Amino acid sequence: MTTSTDPRQTKIILDEDEQPTQWYNLLADLPTPPPPVLHPGTLEPVGPDDLAPLFPMDLIAQEVTTERYIDIPGAVLDVYRLWRPSPMYRAHRLEKALGTPARIYYKYEGVSPAGSHKPNTAVPQAYYNAQAGIRRLTTETGAGQWGTALAFACAQFGLECEIWQVRASYDQKPYRRMMIEVFGGTVHPSPSDLTEAGRRILAEHPDSTGSLGIAISEAVEVAAQNADTNYALGSVLNHVLLHQTVIGEEALLQLAKVGETPDLIVGCTGGGSNFGGLAFPFLREKLAGKMAPVIRAVEPSACPSLTRGVYAYDFGDTAGMTPLMKMHTLGHDFIPDPIHAGGLRYHGMSPLISHLKEEGLLEAVAKPQRECFAAGIQFARTEGIVPAPEPTHAIAAAIEEALRCKETGEAKVILTALCGHGHLDLPAYDAYLSGAMQDQALDDAAINEAIGALPPVPVG
Amino acid sequence: MTTSTDPRQTKIILDEDEQPTQWYNLLADLPTPPPPVLHPGTLEPVGPDDLAPLFPMDLIAQEVTTERYIDIPGAVLDVYRLWRPSPMYRAHRLEKALGTPARIYYKYEGVSPAGSHKPNTAVPQAYYNAQAGIRRLTTETGAGQWGTALAFACAQFGLECEIWQVRASYDQKPYRRMMIEVFGGTVHPSPSDLTEAGRRILAEHPDSTGSLGIAISEAVEVAAQNADTNYALGSVLNHVLLHQTVIGEEALLQLAKVGETPDLIVGCTGGGSNFGGLAFPFLREKLAGKMAPVIRAVEPSACPSLTRGVYAYDFGDTAGMTPLMKMHTLGHDFIPDPIHAGGLRYHGMSPLISHLKEEGLLEAVAKPQRECFAAGIQFARTEGIVPAPEPTHAIAAAIEEALRCKETGEAKVILTALCGHGHLDLPAYDAYLSGAMQDQALDDAAINEAIGALPPVPVG
Repeated sequence: MTTSTDPRQTKIILDEDEQPTQWYNLLADLPTPPPPVLHPGTLEPVGPDDLAPLFPMDLIAQEVTTERYIDIPGAVLDVYRLWRPSPMYRAHRLEKALGTPARIYYKYEGVSPAGSHKPNTAVPQAYYNAQAGIRRLTTETGAGQWGTALAFACAQFGLECEIWQVRASYDQKPYRRMMIEVFGGTVHPSPSDLTEAGRRILAEHPDSTGSLGIAISEAVEVAAQNADTNYALGSVLNHVLLHQTVIGEEALLQLAKVGETPDLIVGCTGGGSNFGGLAFPFLREKLAGKMAPVIRAVEPSACPSLTRGVYAYDFGDTAGMTPLMKMHTLGHDFIPDPIHAGGLRYHGMSPLISHLKEEGLLEAVAKPQRECFAAGIQFARTEGIVPAPEPTHAIAAAIEEALRCKETGEAKVILTALCGHGHLDLPAYDAYLSGAMQDQALDDAAINEAIGALPPVPVG
Repeated sequence: MTTSTDPRQTKIILDEDEQPTQWYNLLADLPTPPPPVLHPGTLEPVGPDDLAPLFPMDLIAQEVTTERYIDIPGAVLDVYRLWRPSPMYRAHRLEKALGTPARIYYKYEGVSPAGSHKPNTAVPQAYYNAQAGIRRLTTETGAGQWGTALAFACAQFGLECEIWQVRASYDQKPYRRMMIEVFGGTVHPSPSDLTEAGRRILAEHPDSTGSLGIAISEAVEVAAQNADTNYALGSVLNHVLLHQTVIGEEALLQLAKVGETPDLIVGCTGGGSNFGGLAFPFLREKLAGKMAPVIRAVEPSACPSLTRGVYAYDFGDTAGMTPLMKMHTLGHDFIPDPIHAGGLRYHGMSPLISHLKEEGLLEAVAKPQRECFAAGIQFARTEGIVPAPEPTHAIAAAIEEALRCKETGEAKVILTALCGHGHLDLPAYDAYLSGAMQDQALDDAAINEAIGALPPVPVG
């Protein structure tokens, strides 16, 4: 594209031939490496063989490599072309409504087939598994964003996709299940009678509405027992955050096109992949002394792992089947209140994001959901996009900073991640507008109990 | 943008400074003018004063002008910037799945705030009304696409937006009502007790599930009785189709960028605004001898005004309150079967599109809904976009032509209008996938009866 000098320019668009062709690996540039992932039995660092029953070797290699850049395969780039490079917008109309001198930019991932950033990693995960001769992928999904992305990705490479969806969501939010089926995926409500883990739960609790932990157990069990089947995860792990760095690499190019340097980068954090995807390339520039943006993670007050949790070794799942990861955690037994931002309801945090927090390379804040929905509605009415509940957290924090600028007169450049649209989340807005939504109280005692039950891991 | 020569290029993007700044008025180039719109009482052509209680003078002027180009106001262009120019895609993955030598392009309007082409006219309609000092707009909506667009547009210019939604849709499809409310609009289920027309219906049928005709009556009544309130219509009228020509003007530029000339332009027709918006600029080029595309309208078999109706004067609404328009009609008493493509369930057709059909300047086909949903699913799995039920009709016809090319070996260039996404229509896909969907039978007797009841208008 040519660079416009029109001050009313709203969209900053890259052509396909400007699409980044490499993922950026932050591990190459960290001042200190993050602590290793441990085998829950031996408490020794896990090796490739420990992960081989679930993941193909290419992804295992990406999980641990310290190479700075990883080439994106051509077949993955060709699928990315359906929506990438994604647009960046200058939020002229929101700025005007706020009366702020700040300049607000948002990078919009809702243009993807699933309506979120998730296909950025679903597509390469499906590709590498297909290359490895795998015939089927299993996964879990809560509200269904990740399941939708993986079903679409599997359709591109001829893989079957089998998804265990938390029963409560399966029953209450059928639109996502329908979208997964349109893309050709198969959805089982979890707990199901298709797995040992599911049958065990159903025997004890025939009316169980499920949990993400149970759904993970079912998906992992099927993958582990079938040689032609692997498992896929939508956040938390290094290789997932790696794939998401296309967001930040594009955003760097887009801001450069309009001659801007960010003062603040703000995104929502659940498992951390959307936030890491946007922030890591900017962090590389910051570590190299080329810019100095504040990097701010926003989490829900009802599930504040970075601001309220402890930095400790914990399991990634509720059932305690995964390796132990050192991360900010509320304890794997902690069940967050049922806020509408289902993608942020995770007890832990990406180990990489957690490490950055410990190293002082990013800061974190927590927001209650009603402030977030109010921000989402102001955003929709001015910018025309109804945000998913998750990125309303980032929007609320961006608005907060913009209003601070209004007081100080600072013309800060704020970049935020709009990681998905809220078309399938409209009942949450309805609850807000009708006055039925509450800010969930934080259950301090439950957090203390869950943190108290963390697995004992020797320090050092 | 620069023109890419990469054969894998998927998106053809225009920069904002390439956005058309004028609407194109086909009336300027028609070999013969269309018949006039008649006053239902006098059977004389309607004049501006007849329309003034409902529409601002700027729109009335646009309804009848024969100027070739109309400048788009700057304030409208600034709102268009939120999603325009809209992208055009080359359907590489669909072509490959079909094994066709045809090259399929689709112009995608689902990127707009409402998720369809409707904001292209909602925004200027809200603008001109605001300029005229109007404080509130009323309208009717069925499934809710038009209501969503108008609510968003009103929010941009500080107008109130009050929408009467057919009770059946209000109850069964709440997501659209919620989206309208997110944008700040007010939705009343119709029939309502807020109007004379609504109260009359409710007195007779307290459990009425409503109809588009009743909802129009309510919206028009409120607009006619309040000097600060006007009415807005989302299709059919000349000025609506005029505003939609931004679609075709952009598409002309986009095809030129990749050096293509279309052999077939295919779109779905309900009231005709999406189809006219894409086709009219190409028709201008065709009339000038610069290209020779076949222009094909696709309608649902259950509501086939162009292929089964008569070309006659009829009312635009069911209640018979509007002026008489000469158009292809199934009779204003005809109630189409409840197909999922609610936007195509209209007894009549834009007078302009109807005139073109009579003049032999376009052709029309009808498609049953299961063929269309099958096409929509193939499209979603290959191209990653779940289409609204309406444009699946255009996709089905594009696929039909591409498969014909596979037999003949012709490498035709097919351009189709993907006028909206189907995120809020997923239950329709669910009905198809679960086998619950039927192709609605055409009620020939009902059509004959409705056509027999057309108002008597002297010929000539």
